[in-house]
Amino acid sequence: MTASGLSAQALAEACAKSMWDDDLATRHLGMELVSVAPGQAVIVMTVAETMANGHGTCHGGYMFTLADSAFAFACNTYNARAVAQHCSITYIAPALVGDRLTATATEVSRKGRSGIYDIRITNQAGEPIAEFRGHSRTIKGTHLPE
Amino acid sequence: MTASGLSAQALAEACAKSMWDDDLATRHLGMELVSVAPGQAVIVMTVAETMANGHGTCHGGYMFTLADSAFAFACNTYNARAVAQHCSITYIAPALVGDRLTATATEVSRKGRSGIYDIRITNQAGEPIAEFRGHSRTIKGTHLPE
Amino acid sequence: MTASGLSAQALAEACAKSMWDDDLATRHLGMELVSVAPGQAVIVMTVAETMANGHGTCHGGYMFTLADSAFAFACNTYNARAVAQHCSITYIAPALVGDRLTATATEVSRKGRSGIYDIRITNQAGEPIAEFRGHSRTIKGTHLPE
Amino acid sequence: MTASGLSAQALAEACAKSMWDDDLATRHLGMELVSVAPGQAVIVMTVAETMANGHGTCHGGYMFTLADSAFAFACNTYNARAVAQHCSITYIAPALVGDRLTATATEVSRKGRSGIYDIRITNQAGEPIAEFRGHSRTIKGTHLPE
Repeated sequence: MTASGLSAQALAEACAKSMWDDDLATRHLGMELVSVAPGQAVIVMTVAETMANGHGTCHGGYMFTLADSAFAFACNTYNARAVAQHCSITYIAPALVGDRLTATATEVSRKGRSGIYDIRITNQAGEPIAEFRGHSRTIKGTHLPE
Repeated sequence: MTASGLSAQALAEACAKSMWDDDLATRHLGMELVSVAPGQAVIVMTVAETMANGHGTCHGGYMFTLADSAFAFACNTYNARAVAQHCSITYIAPALVGDRLTATATEVSRKGRSGIYDIRITNQAGEPIAEFRGHSRTIKGTHLPE
Repeated sequence: MTASGLSAQALAEACAKSMWDDDLATRHLGMELVSVAPGQAVIVMTVAETMANGHGTCHGGYMFTLADSAFAFACNTYNARAVAQHCSITYIAPALVGDRLTATATEVSRKGRSGIYDIRITNQAGEPIAEFRGHSRTIKGTHLPE
Repeated sequence: MTASGLSAQALAEACAKSMWDDDLATRHLGMELVSVAPGQAVIVMTVAETMANGHGTCHGGYMFTLADSAFAFACNTYNARAVAQHCSITYIAPALVGDRLTATATEVSRKGRSGIYDIRITNQAGEPIAEFRGHSRTIKGTHLPE
């Protein structure tokens, strides 16, 4: 498959498929890619026991990882390979073992090689758990042949 | 064991032991706590295949998780329970499967209930991989009885 | 005037008036408060020659100051005094002497004493100039008597 | 003057002089460049009444501007023009009208076109007021002819 002739939505989905097949880390954590669109992505993950401390509270690193994956899929929807430069996360409420977390990535800005994406993590009750902001930069290469 | 009568260094080590025993997530990733001191911690982790994509590059989420663990141990060395509020990471160079990463946490500021900690991640060659800055806030509770 | 019996919008406006009268720094830079609403504020400022370098490009500090003022007004609309804890800014495009900049602050999250606000700066052509994210925390005190 | 043959220290000083002469905004605020070295800069500024609110507390924007200037001088000491991409500031304690603030910039990382610099602001008593972290990127151009 090549990128030529694809709609923006079809291109976003093709880029995501290419990345997903390649991303063992994301699959290994049981993440599911719910949807992708130009500049957007939604991923869900259930908090496993191995992601928590003895009191059942999810390690912040796994919340970050979930948001970071949504960020990566969202900023790679244009068939230009993009990487994370700088990311920040603010914790709002704890997540617990068994919680079903949803990371929703939206594009804030894209100019030249630089992009800004906001990712909100919510739990199964729709309560906000964390807010993440990621800065991307495109590098050489494409996901599909041009 | 109680906190009374312990030196600052012994207290830091006792807090770390209490946290470590409780932190399944950190142990599950194969991290090793190399050292801890008041406001400081060093943790190492080897990049496993399950932490990487198909090209062998470590997912940013696992680098964050390593730094976040070092941050957590460093800001919890005073027998006051502290949690992360806001963290940021800047990626400098990629880490590869098999790399032995060291996260070194140092205290930048501690005033009232708020702390700032910088964590540098380096690889086995001493090359900088990422810079992380974490903001902590103390909550109620102690690691050891007062 | 007291806060009791005011609508949320009227309260937001009363808080803003109280702050504005007190904020010499903001007035001194020629800022104008365009609108305020619960969790929101819009401020405009024209880039003066004294805010720029010799090539006519606005110093980043003045863009930050504009966004920071919009942030302060937005997070102080509930009659609980709130202060900035941590703020970040990403520069997207330069601003020039004479540009009319608009900072639009919206609330991302508010829980307990902590809030997150995003501020977008655009120029007179509607082009994005910078994105700012501010973290607030309420302290003791109100703007109007309760 | 050209860059050829200058020591690293002489080059840093020559770059700083070139920038300073050009930076009306920084001079207009009464800043003084105390010292500069490769990757480092120290700037002082006294908090004026026009930088504060009615209670005499310095607007966060002016603390940011001071740190941002120290950052700019520090990251421009290698005769490669560098600009700010992303900056964050954490407020530790308020600054008051009349306080003499010192911003000390040190280099955390420099690789390829990207740099990370930490700037600490202290007051005349040596108390920490704010911590700033700046991310720079080199663009085309030099301060002195090569």
